[in-house]
Amino acid sequence: MRVLVLGGDGYLGWPTAMYLSQRGHEVAVLDNMVRRSWDNELGAESLVPIASLQERVAVWREVSGKSVAVYVGDLCDYTFIEPVIKEFAPEAIIHYGEQRAAPYSMIDRRHAVFTQVNNIVGTLNVAYAMADHVPDCHMVKLGTMGEYGTPNIDIEEGYITITHKGRTDTLPFPKQPGSFYHLSKVHDSHNLMFCCRIWGLRVTDLNQGVVYGVDTDEIKLHEKLRTRFDYDSVFGTVLNRFLVQAVAGMPLTVYGKGGQTRGFLDIRDTLACVELAMLNPAEKGEFRVFNQFTEQFSVLDLANAVREAAGAHGIDVTIDNLPNPRVEKEDHYYNAVNTHLLDLGLQPHYLSDTLLNSVLQLVQQHKGRIDSRLVLPGVNWRETGTNAFKVSA
Amino acid sequence: MRVLVLGGDGYLGWPTAMYLSQRGHEVAVLDNMVRRSWDNELGAESLVPIASLQERVAVWREVSGKSVAVYVGDLCDYTFIEPVIKEFAPEAIIHYGEQRAAPYSMIDRRHAVFTQVNNIVGTLNVAYAMADHVPDCHMVKLGTMGEYGTPNIDIEEGYITITHKGRTDTLPFPKQPGSFYHLSKVHDSHNLMFCCRIWGLRVTDLNQGVVYGVDTDEIKLHEKLRTRFDYDSVFGTVLNRFLVQAVAGMPLTVYGKGGQTRGFLDIRDTLACVELAMLNPAEKGEFRVFNQFTEQFSVLDLANAVREAAGAHGIDVTIDNLPNPRVEKEDHYYNAVNTHLLDLGLQPHYLSDTLLNSVLQLVQQHKGRIDSRLVLPGVNWRETGTNAFKVSA
Repeated sequence: MRVLVLGGDGYLGWPTAMYLSQRGHEVAVLDNMVRRSWDNELGAESLVPIASLQERVAVWREVSGKSVAVYVGDLCDYTFIEPVIKEFAPEAIIHYGEQRAAPYSMIDRRHAVFTQVNNIVGTLNVAYAMADHVPDCHMVKLGTMGEYGTPNIDIEEGYITITHKGRTDTLPFPKQPGSFYHLSKVHDSHNLMFCCRIWGLRVTDLNQGVVYGVDTDEIKLHEKLRTRFDYDSVFGTVLNRFLVQAVAGMPLTVYGKGGQTRGFLDIRDTLACVELAMLNPAEKGEFRVFNQFTEQFSVLDLANAVREAAGAHGIDVTIDNLPNPRVEKEDHYYNAVNTHLLDLGLQPHYLSDTLLNSVLQLVQQHKGRIDSRLVLPGVNWRETGTNAFKVSA
Repeated sequence: MRVLVLGGDGYLGWPTAMYLSQRGHEVAVLDNMVRRSWDNELGAESLVPIASLQERVAVWREVSGKSVAVYVGDLCDYTFIEPVIKEFAPEAIIHYGEQRAAPYSMIDRRHAVFTQVNNIVGTLNVAYAMADHVPDCHMVKLGTMGEYGTPNIDIEEGYITITHKGRTDTLPFPKQPGSFYHLSKVHDSHNLMFCCRIWGLRVTDLNQGVVYGVDTDEIKLHEKLRTRFDYDSVFGTVLNRFLVQAVAGMPLTVYGKGGQTRGFLDIRDTLACVELAMLNPAEKGEFRVFNQFTEQFSVLDLANAVREAAGAHGIDVTIDNLPNPRVEKEDHYYNAVNTHLLDLGLQPHYLSDTLLNSVLQLVQQHKGRIDSRLVLPGVNWRETGTNAFKVSA
């Protein structure tokens, strides 16, 4: 298939582009490289050095013999995105092209407004360009399990059948997102559901869990094909942070009691899920939702798993319970359905000692690049953020 | 109370400001006058001539002896709204300050993006300024019954208790809005619910039905205090359009079969509801939702009511069924709960012949100002809108 990967320079976008290219699809990536400037803004950096997108694509051509087209620009600029979609005429669009960090959106008002405008307008622009130029194209949109929050009932895949006062309807599952970033994804979901209804677009919304892992078959082909490894408190996910803390000899920082339970998946499963969705497109006018994760863990589960894996490497790890900078339940029911992708044939990679060991080794290899100042939380949900993110010496 | 009315130059904002001023509150109005430039954009005009905001306030001072402060600027400009909220230090904020027309948001991509960015950013800015400067202030936010769409179950007031697979939770009522405008209100609701949770703000979301009527006790005091009467296909509501069509000798244009059922209320009830919400504020951290309407009608019900009222004036009226420019069900279940405001003491004014007669008289008085080209729909939900709104000769 002819597929356009939005956000194709990112942690998942770049591995997805290579994966789809390797499997014979005609791939183009689109990015405005803004993720790299957020690193500059925050004084942070991927623990693993990464090549520029242009270099990645050149190396990929060398090792695979396959070409990937590159479009550099901003989805919020319609004069950029419209001609790209018209010219490339994708059959599928994989949409990773959004600001993806909850803490970044909570820094202050500017960052909250930026995140919502950037994500909403970029996605609306893509939807309009699809409707005008490639109405049969299928958008595979990255959402997040965080859209649902932690309701006291089972989380279904996008819709729930409700019987109320003797009548029944199947309605969008109620959303209780926990940051301005997560809210932006809920806004996208509502907007896209409407675009499917009025214009007959095809959209699959992947409500993805937290992704971990650094290796895919394609990444292993060359050091310059590596993807980002974020461990800072703004863009780093909890498992990465724990692994870095273990290697750096710092205590693992669990927010609050650590009972927060979420869905997780291996990066290789992300790529497989995206291709499964792509090869089995939504119907015309259908807004389809898949919950994309393979296992549920609490934050404390993960801390204990890292402690155990590090112990096997002779690293002694302690756990610190920090005051939770987020506003979230630390002791709650959590059970989410995730059968749609399994039904399409997903073969999950579960979190194992092997995986943790391989990531630990990568972190140890780059131990000298760890900046311990980046790991502790700097963004507090309860504050509006004035001065909360000024750089201290 | 010290109350700031956002959008205080609009159809409801101005009468609300006078009503609250008359009842002894200390009122300031804030507006960027953009509603008046949308008239210029569309070549439309209020059927009833209206004075400038500055003149309105001057006349109001003459007839009532009461002062209303005026702030002119844009909610999307934080350097404007922050000092206003800091200086005026409102105890309540009545928030009408958004783009409010579904067809306007559906003109094309630019108007969709404008509507969502304008409404979301303006509201986020107000929330941040409240959290920083008046954390105990109560926001009374105008939402819309259109956020719910037309589910096949009864519509509750903001939340619904769901029992699912043996577990129970009370969750936000699922939303199925029908335009980019209605979507912007859903986005606001989600954003504000979150602001209440993290910062302890107080918000009442008034999910309002379609408002009709032109007279309030204050408006009757002076011709220069009149509020807008919109009948064009973009900003005019269905009842106004029918009344104008009747007077102009045009057929009443019912979209599709006319079975679309919605909640309606009299403008005097809007003012009463807003003050009731204001005098009985939400708790700290509470995001409270009231469904604000008093009666349900189908579009065909309204057409028949107008035909009857016009008949009594000797006007013979026919009804035309146009192809529906919107994507909506024309035959559906509709039953929405609206007990919260009644419990607080609302005494509804129901739609009666008297009301229709008084509006008919006003329309007849301004018959010479009717521009019949403005009445027929120019915006089609099924089109992305390129050229759909270019002016034809």
